[in-house]
Amino acid sequence: MKYRLPWGEIYTDQLENADIAILGVPFDSAVSNKKGAAEAPDRIRELSRILPAVTEEGLLLKNLKVYDHENVEITLDWEKYFRKVEETAIELIGSGKFCIFIGGDHAVTIPLETAFTKVHKGEKIGIIHFDSHPDIIDTYDGHPWSHACTQRRALELDAMKPEGLTFIGLRSFMEEELEYFEKHPEIKIINAREVYRKGIDYVLETVKEKYKDYTKIYITLDIDVLDPAFAPGTGTPEAGGLSTRELMELVREMVLTLPVEVVDIVEVSPPLDTSDITSWAALKVIYEVFGAVYRKRNK
Amino acid sequence: MKYRLPWGEIYTDQLENADIAILGVPFDSAVSNKKGAAEAPDRIRELSRILPAVTEEGLLLKNLKVYDHENVEITLDWEKYFRKVEETAIELIGSGKFCIFIGGDHAVTIPLETAFTKVHKGEKIGIIHFDSHPDIIDTYDGHPWSHACTQRRALELDAMKPEGLTFIGLRSFMEEELEYFEKHPEIKIINAREVYRKGIDYVLETVKEKYKDYTKIYITLDIDVLDPAFAPGTGTPEAGGLSTRELMELVREMVLTLPVEVVDIVEVSPPLDTSDITSWAALKVIYEVFGAVYRKRNK
Amino acid sequence: MKYRLPWGEIYTDQLENADIAILGVPFDSAVSNKKGAAEAPDRIRELSRILPAVTEEGLLLKNLKVYDHENVEITLDWEKYFRKVEETAIELIGSGKFCIFIGGDHAVTIPLETAFTKVHKGEKIGIIHFDSHPDIIDTYDGHPWSHACTQRRALELDAMKPEGLTFIGLRSFMEEELEYFEKHPEIKIINAREVYRKGIDYVLETVKEKYKDYTKIYITLDIDVLDPAFAPGTGTPEAGGLSTRELMELVREMVLTLPVEVVDIVEVSPPLDTSDITSWAALKVIYEVFGAVYRKRNK
Amino acid sequence: MKYRLPWGEIYTDQLENADIAILGVPFDSAVSNKKGAAEAPDRIRELSRILPAVTEEGLLLKNLKVYDHENVEITLDWEKYFRKVEETAIELIGSGKFCIFIGGDHAVTIPLETAFTKVHKGEKIGIIHFDSHPDIIDTYDGHPWSHACTQRRALELDAMKPEGLTFIGLRSFMEEELEYFEKHPEIKIINAREVYRKGIDYVLETVKEKYKDYTKIYITLDIDVLDPAFAPGTGTPEAGGLSTRELMELVREMVLTLPVEVVDIVEVSPPLDTSDITSWAALKVIYEVFGAVYRKRNK
Amino acid sequence: MKYRLPWGEIYTDQLENADIAILGVPFDSAVSNKKGAAEAPDRIRELSRILPAVTEEGLLLKNLKVYDHENVEITLDWEKYFRKVEETAIELIGSGKFCIFIGGDHAVTIPLETAFTKVHKGEKIGIIHFDSHPDIIDTYDGHPWSHACTQRRALELDAMKPEGLTFIGLRSFMEEELEYFEKHPEIKIINAREVYRKGIDYVLETVKEKYKDYTKIYITLDIDVLDPAFAPGTGTPEAGGLSTRELMELVREMVLTLPVEVVDIVEVSPPLDTSDITSWAALKVIYEVFGAVYRKRNK
Amino acid sequence: MKYRLPWGEIYTDQLENADIAILGVPFDSAVSNKKGAAEAPDRIRELSRILPAVTEEGLLLKNLKVYDHENVEITLDWEKYFRKVEETAIELIGSGKFCIFIGGDHAVTIPLETAFTKVHKGEKIGIIHFDSHPDIIDTYDGHPWSHACTQRRALELDAMKPEGLTFIGLRSFMEEELEYFEKHPEIKIINAREVYRKGIDYVLETVKEKYKDYTKIYITLDIDVLDPAFAPGTGTPEAGGLSTRELMELVREMVLTLPVEVVDIVEVSPPLDTSDITSWAALKVIYEVFGAVYRKRNK
Ligand SMILES: [Mn+2]
Ligand SMILES: [Mn+2]
Ligand SMILES: [Mn+2]
Ligand SMILES: [Mn+2]
Ligand SMILES: [Mn+2]
Ligand SMILES: [Mn+2]
Ligand SMILES: [Mn+2]
Ligand SMILES: [Mn+2]
Ligand SMILES: [Mn+2]
Ligand SMILES: [Mn+2]
Ligand SMILES: [Mn+2]
Ligand SMILES: [Mn+2]
Repeated sequence: MKYRLPWGEIYTDQLENADIAILGVPFDSAVSNKKGAAEAPDRIRELSRILPAVTEEGLLLKNLKVYDHENVEITLDWEKYFRKVEETAIELIGSGKFCIFIGGDHAVTIPLETAFTKVHKGEKIGIIHFDSHPDIIDTYDGHPWSHACTQRRALELDAMKPEGLTFIGLRSFMEEELEYFEKHPEIKIINAREVYRKGIDYVLETVKEKYKDYTKIYITLDIDVLDPAFAPGTGTPEAGGLSTRELMELVREMVLTLPVEVVDIVEVSPPLDTSDITSWAALKVIYEVFGAVYRKRNK
Repeated sequence: MKYRLPWGEIYTDQLENADIAILGVPFDSAVSNKKGAAEAPDRIRELSRILPAVTEEGLLLKNLKVYDHENVEITLDWEKYFRKVEETAIELIGSGKFCIFIGGDHAVTIPLETAFTKVHKGEKIGIIHFDSHPDIIDTYDGHPWSHACTQRRALELDAMKPEGLTFIGLRSFMEEELEYFEKHPEIKIINAREVYRKGIDYVLETVKEKYKDYTKIYITLDIDVLDPAFAPGTGTPEAGGLSTRELMELVREMVLTLPVEVVDIVEVSPPLDTSDITSWAALKVIYEVFGAVYRKRNK
Repeated sequence: MKYRLPWGEIYTDQLENADIAILGVPFDSAVSNKKGAAEAPDRIRELSRILPAVTEEGLLLKNLKVYDHENVEITLDWEKYFRKVEETAIELIGSGKFCIFIGGDHAVTIPLETAFTKVHKGEKIGIIHFDSHPDIIDTYDGHPWSHACTQRRALELDAMKPEGLTFIGLRSFMEEELEYFEKHPEIKIINAREVYRKGIDYVLETVKEKYKDYTKIYITLDIDVLDPAFAPGTGTPEAGGLSTRELMELVREMVLTLPVEVVDIVEVSPPLDTSDITSWAALKVIYEVFGAVYRKRNK
Repeated sequence: MKYRLPWGEIYTDQLENADIAILGVPFDSAVSNKKGAAEAPDRIRELSRILPAVTEEGLLLKNLKVYDHENVEITLDWEKYFRKVEETAIELIGSGKFCIFIGGDHAVTIPLETAFTKVHKGEKIGIIHFDSHPDIIDTYDGHPWSHACTQRRALELDAMKPEGLTFIGLRSFMEEELEYFEKHPEIKIINAREVYRKGIDYVLETVKEKYKDYTKIYITLDIDVLDPAFAPGTGTPEAGGLSTRELMELVREMVLTLPVEVVDIVEVSPPLDTSDITSWAALKVIYEVFGAVYRKRNK
Repeated sequence: MKYRLPWGEIYTDQLENADIAILGVPFDSAVSNKKGAAEAPDRIRELSRILPAVTEEGLLLKNLKVYDHENVEITLDWEKYFRKVEETAIELIGSGKFCIFIGGDHAVTIPLETAFTKVHKGEKIGIIHFDSHPDIIDTYDGHPWSHACTQRRALELDAMKPEGLTFIGLRSFMEEELEYFEKHPEIKIINAREVYRKGIDYVLETVKEKYKDYTKIYITLDIDVLDPAFAPGTGTPEAGGLSTRELMELVREMVLTLPVEVVDIVEVSPPLDTSDITSWAALKVIYEVFGAVYRKRNK
Repeated sequence: MKYRLPWGEIYTDQLENADIAILGVPFDSAVSNKKGAAEAPDRIRELSRILPAVTEEGLLLKNLKVYDHENVEITLDWEKYFRKVEETAIELIGSGKFCIFIGGDHAVTIPLETAFTKVHKGEKIGIIHFDSHPDIIDTYDGHPWSHACTQRRALELDAMKPEGLTFIGLRSFMEEELEYFEKHPEIKIINAREVYRKGIDYVLETVKEKYKDYTKIYITLDIDVLDPAFAPGTGTPEAGGLSTRELMELVREMVLTLPVEVVDIVEVSPPLDTSDITSWAALKVIYEVFGAVYRKRNK
């Protein structure tokens, strides 16, 4: 008569025993429009209680161990909060475990990527950013920590160079972003239309080629990279996006073949969703990441 | 000023005049989580009052006749209910008409497949099972008639051999199911990723080859084989599924080219749906089955 | 502290300065079933306040100017209303600006196409109609101005010949419509299944070939041409439709390469929608039309 | 295994055997804002299949017989439609049966009250109008048949005098309406605040006194007389209204003690509702009317 | 950074230390229509994480201790399940703690009341049943354990006499129930209309008088006793019910002044609810029961 | 063909001509749970386009003039935002116009009350606070500007004494709040149960007596003072609250008879609402405030 916990039988309460560490960052105040992403970590965990621990191709994950550090509990003092997120992320990434961070809005990637570069000082660091928006604005809604500024903040970090950055799925831009891209042609962009026209194998080859000598990669996944049909539960939906199938193919293969150490999933907003399909899509991607990590560790 | 009945002008109230017999099985008690599939038969009928009787390619169905036996009225005595379902199905299948059964959760397929094998004793019987889950567990939620046990029950029938079974669209498994598949490699599986990677023509060829000497085929269609974008209204949605288009292509061609005698559609849950799109998808598939039956009879 | 208006920084309040003129036609009384399309023009405008003025490939539209004539205010006197719609449309089309009309149900295309043929008397006029239904019934629900009668009314105009008409995405028909098509094989139909099986490049080539000597083309876009997964917010959804991606590819290329002067978008029904995804899809298509017009003008 | 029809065991298909005749008038085109009242007759009938035929105090209605003439099927030709409504209502009222008409928006009361005065020519006719709005505008949204004009049209009928009219529950007015009331102090108004402050017994005494020598009374019940907490499913909700309990007390007692011959219920809009509570409230009032008619007939 | 558990700081994980024991009974299979009550125990617990442990008049409950036995985990074998519910309830009631049981549909009261009479053999036992329905049918939907049969099963228990039973808030009946009441005038009924007309103080006096020499009382609270405005989230809503305020006044005073040992709350159906208001109402009543128990123990 | 603006014909774009000044404060970041109150100002304005400018008793407001300063545009820098809110409020209150502020969450009352005391330095200032919660915590969610701290901040202002404060409708408390009240018995509390038991006339007399020598009063209205049946659209609903009717009676009479200069309405959260009934309730209260101001000015 035991209540089934999130992550079911693969859950461990000991970080050291784990293959994967999870952290929730339930923060959505860097958005001034439609909110709700703060509810994502708990909703996704809730759904994980039902979904069996297996990949979509039938690889059983029962020997994988997942530690869940729970949420960085919200405070209304934003600065203090981001500091706490960064510290916690440093601890988890520093443990050498594969990390999965669940937002929150895309601003949470700011302290998370900071933590990543601090832990991996000296490494050749890459960031692969799935999104319909580049989030590369300098200041937005009167603040440098808006969810529209995520990668701009990353590029101010010493460890991070524009050529380490790839955007996949873009299909909406602000003028400042286009200007920035013009000045930084070394940033790789594969926009949504190219994903459709050239196919996912092209995307995978391009990325594998580009990152062949990188040593640490961070994948940040804004769920609005999906078409609103697949992910209606997000604050700034953009039609013309990827299918969940395509996203699963891309993320799984990248984790399998590149030195990816962190995946974050942000902008899933349960109160804006219908029938939880956006959370289900996020969870299915997470399980495929689980499987890829497992296969990598057991190769 | 006449009220338009379900199935509109192709409806007949005489089984003997019909090409197709329909039966609703509004039962969803074999699910211990999110329910609602009991409302599907009436919702789908309601939508049929609006949709013209024609295939998507413009084949007019006005000379097809559809008999609707209405619902097997629910009782809370489960055993009595399944017996009644089986008896009614035997009557309808036994009439020689092409049968379409509308669930209800996937447990209703247990008495339906039983009826199928009883009527077609001595025939070489195949089952094609569209689903994201194999439903091949021995006992689930404390009961052998859970919707997770459907095909396990089928394989206990004399007439049914593992090699007669094909699963299409799988992408979630329980450990017991993987073990079962390992022991029974003669069960054919084309999982969701394969459908995507190899294409629907591959699926069709595989199935046509496999069933070339079978004489009676039952198609059971769990609507969760579709991606949640196309079928949010179901109890256990699994991202990464088929599109309605792919499903229409597959089902129509199978009915046209194989000795299919029954199609059931289960796990459509109207209260979990949004804008009825899951019911609309189910109904569109049903109309394509109508068209395929019509073309076969008039070849 | 300025409130951002619809169409944001590309808005102009002077028709003469504009590249594009927009008109809302918030009328949904020609439907006798599920309504709500009257709310579309204002909802789509509302969303336009957030979406930056740029194409999905990053073409900045800030030098494009969009005039919005607002809505033809509803009156309950249907005849007077359609007259007013026609007059206003004549004024806007007559100005030589590219026109985008936002319905409303598909009946509003009746006065709009009438206006189009009146302004372009003597030209060789084509109509490309995206829809899952042909809307070619003579009288429906007791009235010749039902949304099921749109193209039948068009074909009664002197300027309009059946061979000028192309339907894309059809997948539901009434008997009368099939008979009409049989009598008029010169009407080109590329149904939804063909779009899937033959691909969008085939569709584009077919249309370019067909219209190569036409001088004025009107595209009417019933949002139900999309699959309900992409456009649940519409009165008569039909499974098996196009994706928003496919629609964007088709419409953009047609505006770019054919002498299209008007695009209308109809049957978006916000109260039937979920998470506004249908309105977002419509708006994204409109922005791609913006981009295509801009590129054409600046070639 | 018989499907339970609307109105269950008290339904009769013969008008002559009936105590009560029901008619649906699924028309909502006289509203230019939020629609949906056209869906009310069928939704309320659907709910009646579940609700046992009994009053809230346990008076069994099984000896009452209810005939349902179904809906006046919609046509888009408004004039023809209202003519058909009027004719059908004349037939039903003329039969001497107690009539219950289910809208539709409040415009449908125009042909219904016309029918009432035509059948009861020569009688002293009263109208009791429950509403948060007086609906006494001359022309609205460009039309004299708007749902805002209902009682203005009634007062143009020969048989209808202002002193025959009582409004209960008013709490929103247009200037023209206030002017009209100033000119016609003989119209009785008990606004929503008075119902609250003076109590329902005061309302009942006032009405009984006023109508003591009237011979035929028509009660028209706009569901928006209820507070939006009790009736969210309506196009123009007005806070500060009655509770369903108060409405039940008022309507039941009026039918019991006054020569009421017709009750209509309008402006219930199922697509605007939540959990069907507005339809349930309407149905419960209808059942109390059933009970009152039954008690009157069996006194 | 600790996650706040259900029941917050008043939670104890030791039954012996507790003042109150809680048990969830997430079963809704005894309903053949709209389900969802199985989700109530967890939803109500979830909301309890936010609501401070205090009564509505500011009595701090921090010295009260609440033990939560969690849910009787569902199995699809109904008989086994009810046996497990009964056994668990015997254990909890037998501990002498005040018990609060959260359904589930009203069928769960069958094993719960059985447990109550078994533990309190020899006592003078009363049942106060809040509901809009009497639930006193012999067999319903083909089964004696339907949620319509609850009190009929209770009256078959030796310890339970009709005169021990009081119904409050009734407003819908089946014929068999009316006949049963006629034969058993010793059953006390205060229907919903009487609650309104006579007031809650009358109800309280009546009940106190009736139960003055009873030694053990069970209150069963079907949330549909509330008006649908206050409790839309339930399977068979009935307009004309109590307000949450009235219910709070009644239940609190009864627990305070009568020998109540158990309160159950059933038929709260979260998926049928809007904005969780039904669950919030249930929880607020539970907190007032907490306060009454606390005041009683500390008198 | 003119679009109707918010506040319709009583709108003026000149503060000096106005009787009433309105300001929107679309801020909901001081809540760490369910958000959405930022959408209230625009939703309420939208509904005002439809509701005629009249009181519920038929007092025409066309000679009243309402100026709308629009919203204090959000920035993500909270401190800067509150400073801007305070400055703007000082300007509006300082103009001598009656002010209506529309939140946002209850934190916005912090800068608003500060502005009030700054403008009215030297006056005897009262605050009447309608709420189910006292919002008198010192620091909450790690911040002194949480919506739970509003009146604690007010009591730190020189001009504000505990005896100037009245709470109406309370029914949930945190321990710290109860302790604070114990230390400050001069704060007047009329909790929700007292409003029910003693009636609204008692409330009005109490308040009139208490404030008879005060010169400036601020009413702050947290919409959660209403029962969730009347106001489901709010972040922390509490069952057992007032009806909209009671609130209208209380607020109107207080504005009429006391020196009220400001009313704010906060915590209306449109995305948490159903059928907009919470926004409709807020708007109706605002119109009654309009009427009271008008009557006062024209006495
Ligand atoms: Mn992003
Ligand atoms: Mn994004
Ligand atoms: Mn299945
Ligand atoms: Mn399945
Ligand atoms: Mn169309
Ligand atoms: Mn269409
Ligand atoms: Mn009306
Ligand atoms: Mn009205
Ligand atoms: Mn019950
Ligand atoms: Mn009940
Ligand atoms: Mn507050
Ligand atoms: Mn509050």
